[in-house]
Amino acid sequence: MAIKRKSARSKRAVRSHASLKRTVTKTASRPAVLQYTPWSSVPLEELNPLLGRQLVYGQQIMLARVLLKKGCIVPQHSHENEQLTYILEGALKFWIDGKQIVVNAGETLCIPSNMPHKAEALEDTVDLDVFCPPRADWINKTDQYLRGKK
Amino acid sequence: MAIKRKSARSKRAVRSHASLKRTVTKTASRPAVLQYTPWSSVPLEELNPLLGRQLVYGQQIMLARVLLKKGCIVPQHSHENEQLTYILEGALKFWIDGKQIVVNAGETLCIPSNMPHKAEALEDTVDLDVFCPPRADWINKTDQYLRGKK
Repeated sequence: MAIKRKSARSKRAVRSHASLKRTVTKTASRPAVLQYTPWSSVPLEELNPLLGRQLVYGQQIMLARVLLKKGCIVPQHSHENEQLTYILEGALKFWIDGKQIVVNAGETLCIPSNMPHKAEALEDTVDLDVFCPPRADWINKTDQYLRGKK
Repeated sequence: MAIKRKSARSKRAVRSHASLKRTVTKTASRPAVLQYTPWSSVPLEELNPLLGRQLVYGQQIMLARVLLKKGCIVPQHSHENEQLTYILEGALKFWIDGKQIVVNAGETLCIPSNMPHKAEALEDTVDLDVFCPPRADWINKTDQYLRGKK
């Protein structure tokens, strides 16, 4: 029998993002289980009026769908997690490594661990951010640099 | 000065996928450098008549843009790398963990390390696969299970 979308999903073995959220502790650790997750089932977390995001993650990989309105500023920050950004729609301007780099739709930026960076949305943007390991501060909602600011 | 697309990229500090390919050895290891990579600059590797892919990767993350024509079969295989699949266009049917799961556009599947899986493209599909660590067999072109087959 084919399992399609949420309605026919095996509740036993295929754990949804929602069910897994209940088991998330202060770290990114979680059991190694198969997870089938439509983005439509993942709550959109509104961090500030210009910035929202959705998360799916396993033990080693976090995939974040980040929605930025034009003018949104991500203040300078750094993290040990390697980051690979893929812009699906729109454009982000980065200040990084002493340079300014505009990453447009269809382009990627791989940011090494602990490299400080700041970004600004030049348009309404759909940004896919991959992190390894998963961002504990995003899971635990301790990412104050993103909250309540434009 | 803003650095936009390939034309204005800093050749010294922002290393393109093409230049990095030359330094790839038998493992996925590479220096931790900032990489700005438009997908349009990444060669499309044609593995078989129904399957092509492009790769960008850092030290810990590999992002693969996998293009599958309708009917393409990815034979059953497994790997230690955790995999997070995000279907951008089309649909893939997976045989995994004793189940069949259809992953449509806008949906994700997180596959734990060493879990055998097979897939079939139900439509022409654009699949984004994230791996941690990067797939050494994809870098080294030792992925015979994908080559020369439909």
